[in-house]
Amino acid sequence: MWVEDVGEFPLIARLAAIVGRARPDVLVGIGDDAAALDLGGDALVLLTVDSQVEGIHFVRHRIGPRLLGRRLLAVNASDIAAMGGEPTHALVSLVLPPGLELEWIEELYEGLRAEADPLGVSVVGGNVARSGDGVVLDLTLAGRVPRGELLTRAGARPGDRLLVTGTLGGAAAGLWLSGHPGIRIPEGEALLARHLAPTPRVREGRVIATSRLARALIDLSDGLGGDVVHLCDRSGVGVRVYVENLPLAPGVAHVAELSGRAPWELALYGGEDFELLCTAPPPAAEALAERVSAEAGTPASVVGEVLPAAAGRWLLLPDGREVPLTGKGFTHF
Amino acid sequence: MWVEDVGEFPLIARLAAIVGRARPDVLVGIGDDAAALDLGGDALVLLTVDSQVEGIHFVRHRIGPRLLGRRLLAVNASDIAAMGGEPTHALVSLVLPPGLELEWIEELYEGLRAEADPLGVSVVGGNVARSGDGVVLDLTLAGRVPRGELLTRAGARPGDRLLVTGTLGGAAAGLWLSGHPGIRIPEGEALLARHLAPTPRVREGRVIATSRLARALIDLSDGLGGDVVHLCDRSGVGVRVYVENLPLAPGVAHVAELSGRAPWELALYGGEDFELLCTAPPPAAEALAERVSAEAGTPASVVGEVLPAAAGRWLLLPDGREVPLTGKGFTHF
Repeated sequence: MWVEDVGEFPLIARLAAIVGRARPDVLVGIGDDAAALDLGGDALVLLTVDSQVEGIHFVRHRIGPRLLGRRLLAVNASDIAAMGGEPTHALVSLVLPPGLELEWIEELYEGLRAEADPLGVSVVGGNVARSGDGVVLDLTLAGRVPRGELLTRAGARPGDRLLVTGTLGGAAAGLWLSGHPGIRIPEGEALLARHLAPTPRVREGRVIATSRLARALIDLSDGLGGDVVHLCDRSGVGVRVYVENLPLAPGVAHVAELSGRAPWELALYGGEDFELLCTAPPPAAEALAERVSAEAGTPASVVGEVLPAAAGRWLLLPDGREVPLTGKGFTHF
Repeated sequence: MWVEDVGEFPLIARLAAIVGRARPDVLVGIGDDAAALDLGGDALVLLTVDSQVEGIHFVRHRIGPRLLGRRLLAVNASDIAAMGGEPTHALVSLVLPPGLELEWIEELYEGLRAEADPLGVSVVGGNVARSGDGVVLDLTLAGRVPRGELLTRAGARPGDRLLVTGTLGGAAAGLWLSGHPGIRIPEGEALLARHLAPTPRVREGRVIATSRLARALIDLSDGLGGDVVHLCDRSGVGVRVYVENLPLAPGVAHVAELSGRAPWELALYGGEDFELLCTAPPPAAEALAERVSAEAGTPASVVGEVLPAAAGRWLLLPDGREVPLTGKGFTHF
């Protein structure tokens, strides 16, 4: 069997089974946004790694190295935020082809630093290797979360409300616009920025974690439609997503019209918005939304409810119909 | 300027200057074998990352995935050992081309586990991404070292003796034999194993660190001739290496003869032996060598002395001549 026929998540499950049992200091291992370790300090230590591969995640002549450096740090910081933590230390592994300009690497690092400094992250190490062909960037990010404030994908309970930060569909709309440079809309620049240089919701994650009101947390890298399935899998629950409540980024409806899709398809399945999705019991959910808005300056919206596992996973469409939610999008209804 | 014209170490220095100052919890940042962080626990936290790139570090049809998995963990564990620490947690980033067999990845992970289990290392996370072409494996390894036992490349002082664990030249001899499959010598299998699946000197590093007799420590990945220069650079000292005392791995003299080189050239510049090199003041150095031998079961040899910076860096050849030591080997004398 070829590895591309297995799929990312079944592959990870198979590999997790091979590596076997974990040390007792591992609170969260393979299968969440980051690992969580109890190394004896006041705070737990979080660890995550993510790659940017030329030709797969980026095209070298389409994204400047500075933006790419920011993006590399931002997508990893989002995984730390998804555990309720704040990022602290980064290691960068550069795999570089011959003929790459020194200036390109230096600008990449300037971008990294521009994103790292406001977050309080230090780059503490890394590695440089040659590639036969194409740039591969790997960033490992460590973070911290005080004991008792760790949030994972597990922990959601039936009756909880689903709460999402910010707005959805913006990155997907920006991606579409980047492929249609002739089309200009007023929100175009902001949407492109959401696509190229996402903002990790670290402050929002800290508000959610310190509130102690939330039960489960995940970041939205695959799109809410896919990521809520991961959360349900790990929590052992079902879900109903209220499609009408999905908070669309400004301009998403416009791009949806231009591209012939429903706006909520971009919001649900577009991916890479890097917002946070958490669950909390009903009265707490409203209070939590207000706190995120007041303390982090980011709106938060109730977009669904957690069901018992046996009740299944559903989308409540704007016209009142319910259709099964699958992680991969859907076309048949 | 192209990145390959800059050289690995000047490039790292330039990038380190860009990322700027570190958080106060960073005890050792860019430029040593691993970063060392004080995260409030009883032990300091070590972090390092290293890559294995297809076509650069390995040829897929020449090394089985199981051996490659062992190697991936081993070379990183050596960097943790080089700080006096023990490895604890690993993250694995897989960048995989289409058409790779699932079995290959599963065997890679079995190799990882075979190396990780005896060292007490848990694989706690990772990432899977596609590549356009070729496998890139990145492993991030965390480790621990009790406060007060951290050893770095800095700290060597004039008068210290240089002490090396185990034997040298074996990996280079194994590499040469792997390129000459028609040639068989009695030690061939052992030398090939040194090349393909090095043994990280974790126990030896712990003996050195707990003894509190050593002042500086580094692992030998580039070869003693290159790595002692890194140690001298970070410690601000000179050195005299006694070529006659270099402990040759069994069979190295034979391979040297077959390949038309001096045995000590393989020992000094072959690279990838993954032994440890430390410095200690004269009476302590002898005691330390005995302790490494008694407690870790590995011989340790005095192979040189630390000089003041102004005295320079020298090789004392078997015939009594002294020649300048450069990191890259030498041909003119």
